[in-house]
Amino acid sequence: MLTIGIDIGGTKVAAGVVDEEGTILAQALRPTPADRPDQVAETVADVVRELSADRQIEAIGVGAAGFVDETRSVVRFAPNLAWREEPLQKKITELVGLPVVVENDANAMAWAESKFGAGRDQDHIVCITVGTGIGGGLIFDGALYRGRWGMGAELGHMQVVPEGKKCGCGNLGCWEQYASGNALVAHAREISTATPERARILLELAGGSIEGEEVTEAARQGDEACLEAFASLAEWLGQGMADLAAILDPGCFIVGGGVSRASDLFLDRARDSFQRRLTGRGHRPFAEVRLAELGASAGLVGAADLARQR
Amino acid sequence: MLTIGIDIGGTKVAAGVVDEEGTILAQALRPTPADRPDQVAETVADVVRELSADRQIEAIGVGAAGFVDETRSVVRFAPNLAWREEPLQKKITELVGLPVVVENDANAMAWAESKFGAGRDQDHIVCITVGTGIGGGLIFDGALYRGRWGMGAELGHMQVVPEGKKCGCGNLGCWEQYASGNALVAHAREISTATPERARILLELAGGSIEGEEVTEAARQGDEACLEAFASLAEWLGQGMADLAAILDPGCFIVGGGVSRASDLFLDRARDSFQRRLTGRGHRPFAEVRLAELGASAGLVGAADLARQR
Amino acid sequence: MLTIGIDIGGTKVAAGVVDEEGTILAQALRPTPADRPDQVAETVADVVRELSADRQIEAIGVGAAGFVDETRSVVRFAPNLAWREEPLQKKITELVGLPVVVENDANAMAWAESKFGAGRDQDHIVCITVGTGIGGGLIFDGALYRGRWGMGAELGHMQVVPEGKKCGCGNLGCWEQYASGNALVAHAREISTATPERARILLELAGGSIEGEEVTEAARQGDEACLEAFASLAEWLGQGMADLAAILDPGCFIVGGGVSRASDLFLDRARDSFQRRLTGRGHRPFAEVRLAELGASAGLVGAADLARQR
Amino acid sequence: MLTIGIDIGGTKVAAGVVDEEGTILAQALRPTPADRPDQVAETVADVVRELSADRQIEAIGVGAAGFVDETRSVVRFAPNLAWREEPLQKKITELVGLPVVVENDANAMAWAESKFGAGRDQDHIVCITVGTGIGGGLIFDGALYRGRWGMGAELGHMQVVPEGKKCGCGNLGCWEQYASGNALVAHAREISTATPERARILLELAGGSIEGEEVTEAARQGDEACLEAFASLAEWLGQGMADLAAILDPGCFIVGGGVSRASDLFLDRARDSFQRRLTGRGHRPFAEVRLAELGASAGLVGAADLARQR
Repeated sequence: MLTIGIDIGGTKVAAGVVDEEGTILAQALRPTPADRPDQVAETVADVVRELSADRQIEAIGVGAAGFVDETRSVVRFAPNLAWREEPLQKKITELVGLPVVVENDANAMAWAESKFGAGRDQDHIVCITVGTGIGGGLIFDGALYRGRWGMGAELGHMQVVPEGKKCGCGNLGCWEQYASGNALVAHAREISTATPERARILLELAGGSIEGEEVTEAARQGDEACLEAFASLAEWLGQGMADLAAILDPGCFIVGGGVSRASDLFLDRARDSFQRRLTGRGHRPFAEVRLAELGASAGLVGAADLARQR
Repeated sequence: MLTIGIDIGGTKVAAGVVDEEGTILAQALRPTPADRPDQVAETVADVVRELSADRQIEAIGVGAAGFVDETRSVVRFAPNLAWREEPLQKKITELVGLPVVVENDANAMAWAESKFGAGRDQDHIVCITVGTGIGGGLIFDGALYRGRWGMGAELGHMQVVPEGKKCGCGNLGCWEQYASGNALVAHAREISTATPERARILLELAGGSIEGEEVTEAARQGDEACLEAFASLAEWLGQGMADLAAILDPGCFIVGGGVSRASDLFLDRARDSFQRRLTGRGHRPFAEVRLAELGASAGLVGAADLARQR
Repeated sequence: MLTIGIDIGGTKVAAGVVDEEGTILAQALRPTPADRPDQVAETVADVVRELSADRQIEAIGVGAAGFVDETRSVVRFAPNLAWREEPLQKKITELVGLPVVVENDANAMAWAESKFGAGRDQDHIVCITVGTGIGGGLIFDGALYRGRWGMGAELGHMQVVPEGKKCGCGNLGCWEQYASGNALVAHAREISTATPERARILLELAGGSIEGEEVTEAARQGDEACLEAFASLAEWLGQGMADLAAILDPGCFIVGGGVSRASDLFLDRARDSFQRRLTGRGHRPFAEVRLAELGASAGLVGAADLARQR
Repeated sequence: MLTIGIDIGGTKVAAGVVDEEGTILAQALRPTPADRPDQVAETVADVVRELSADRQIEAIGVGAAGFVDETRSVVRFAPNLAWREEPLQKKITELVGLPVVVENDANAMAWAESKFGAGRDQDHIVCITVGTGIGGGLIFDGALYRGRWGMGAELGHMQVVPEGKKCGCGNLGCWEQYASGNALVAHAREISTATPERARILLELAGGSIEGEEVTEAARQGDEACLEAFASLAEWLGQGMADLAAILDPGCFIVGGGVSRASDLFLDRARDSFQRRLTGRGHRPFAEVRLAELGASAGLVGAADLARQR
């Protein structure tokens, strides 16, 4: 029994036919009509038609960044695509004539990792997606947890510093201002401005345009500023995991997202930071801290699999 | 079908026969043998014998402060009674010959409130017990959430101030250092020392010994210092609820515990603080903030009912 | 014996002939050639010529925002006018043939207040200029304190929140991010976005464009959001004064700058906050917290008087 | 012309005859009558009589921990010796018939370092005494700065963490809770409890009783926990220096006190932290960060020299 998973990103719509083992049998890609958010449903329909031409498809799972309502039908608010109360399920169903479920993309990713990836032996999982911001997905007793209105697991918006750095969400001191990819790059830039002699490798590599790739590469070559920025990210990641463990006592954390490709530069220290900061340490086991396994297609695979559960 | 619920506190063991509607049919009380923690099981057995003399009892539910393991059998660590890896279930079962389950007391209270109290119309509940510290209980999809090892919902130990006030758990800046009854009293004491002219009512009432009751009474009479301490508690309570809502998106919060008896002095402001601080406000409903309804017997009732689920 | 004081602002150059009692005998004004910072010296010379046409002038004192070097000659760095190592003294002296001293504008203001204004009976003064940012001036043993390189009294850049809000200076958590006019307006805007119902008066008054005047007026009319923003400013102002008193033990604080025109909305609470937070309170006198008296011409008068001391 | 300097500590009274070059010509020592604070003056008189038996002594300078009033006569409050409004000058003068001045001990130390020690080529000095707490002394334009009521330079009580760790002074988040010797030891203990495997060297050395010496020795042998505690002290020391430089723009910092004997373990990093955190860096020189030179006798020498200035 096959389903199609769709991952709607800011620049492209990735789609795949997925079987019950989480294997992708076929893929297709379209550019996201970002300036016409009302056209996204048609793009999805188009790619579904291509992929379902010669296959029996049971249902469609769509993953998108933003708040998705508890009926898995409507995107209430999406920062990237300027959606407000977008009835995505209804639009796509009308176009393709198949059952559709809509999911938050980080939830979809978490589900894929829990079923087919790093968490397949675990029942209580906190999945942390460290990209430009921080997203999350929660697996409790083997099921995806969505919250009362489908808006749970916005892990990046716990406050970790009272009156701290301004966040895009309007609040101050959110976790993602200290432990995300954007925080990492901002930190490295700050150090390189303040004390350029500590950022020689970075400044040489980047030539004025410091982005995540340059920070990672410079850190690997021993740049002091970038190593410090990664160390700070790791400490804050551990702090957030300690907070989440106090609340949720998961069996494992799974760290994914774009920044996790540089896990050699921060994951050991994040684990150490978590263990030093966990309340009740000494009287309880430590949750494992694992790296995500499925890479960039996790969202697509997870959405496809969640479409089976209607 | 009747069960007995037991609430093991630092000073007394409260027990009650509870029916399926959560009604207490009979009660009994014993002093806790606090200096002989190994004797607690016998005290429990004793009270069970008394209560079960003329009734058919199906099972026993025991609530205790501390980390209870995921099999609901062993108290791994209890600060009040100096228990370490105490096999409470085994001991009591051997003494009374009935099935026994052990639960964390805040979990038991949360369960009672969710089934028979303030949350009976809700499926996703975060229960916050504001006493000397802060405890918690989580109800997800109508079931009690315990975490992988039974240690979830230690809500009081989220860090809210980096490098903040020292907590009894060994960490710095835990939530319960800012929003619990102990925090309230400490705060009022500090203000009264620093600026006695703002604490005239309190100082007159307390005559040197400032405890929670004096702080509450003085606040009701308009004492500036105590009103400020309650305002601070309310703001921090709201901040913590905003953090928990970002993670868990509950339908409601239930605030209980000893401090909640003074809810007129802080609950409205805590709700307001929560709403001002919630990430994504404007694009999502606000969880309700409700007062617990079952009072001091919630723990006993919850433990009794949880004993039905084996 | 007369001197001329000049206050170089971002939009206008204000000049005045000042006698030994601090009285302004004549004034003149020119627009600042802000897009031609190298022309400022000529504007100053022009206004000096006008004012000295029929008077005997002994020296010129120039006040400017920015870091002025310890010889009172060179503006090393001025954010508003894009000056770097600007030899202002030399340029003006060459043009007008009179002795010239250059001073930081907040230092000049502090000096005027200490000699002719709110601090004339005091020898140890910390002057706090609360405008868009926070500037300062220090009077120790009756003399202006400049520091080793003339860069002392940058009071707005003490860190008060570790990893706090980003400051224009590149650091995080500077005092002026919490207690300046800009902080006030930002805070009021945030509350009005988060909970518009608490900012009804402000939103009606401001009609979309919230600036300092609207926040002040709305606070006076009882707007909840604006009162909260002022309360926060007052608390932080008091905290900073407590820190400065721990270090400097002044006899008084003088609060000036544009925001001080709304002193009825924050000064009492700032004083109270200072007294609650002062280390060693109970064993030491409290420094007075006074309002500046000389208004907008303080900078000009102070610069003129400092020109007498060469 | 000779004077006698006295350093009243918690356990011993150290005295010395000092010449105008700051050389100690003779010394004497007595135990402090700590349980009879009213007897301290007699102990001082006794040691003065011994040292002045065969010399012409002009005056006596007494250094003591605590708040000393602006007339240099009365100790208003001393935490160690339970003094309140102790008229030390009057008492000692009556007993020995010589002029007496009383000084805060950290001020005396700072004066000695500025005149005979690490700061003899400097006019603007901030002296930081890192011992169990943090004391300070300020030299401005070559003179000791005392503040309006003699209580300046309580540097350890700047707040660096809002609502941070409780300080003995009653406030929260004081600098000395993060950068003093006590903070160092507390930090090392915390890490060794949380993660004993990172503190193996320390735990072996200390055998249960962890104090400053063990932390220092273990750090020198590479103990991870102790190195982390020193790194944290260094970072916070640098932050405090950056705050002080924003306010005071000194030409140099002098770091003394008991912890400075381990300067190899933190001073380079403290300097680096200071430079990274200084506001306006890039547009101003960096103050030097120097080690104190005079060791434990600095207080005695400074008090003796200050007695010359009456």
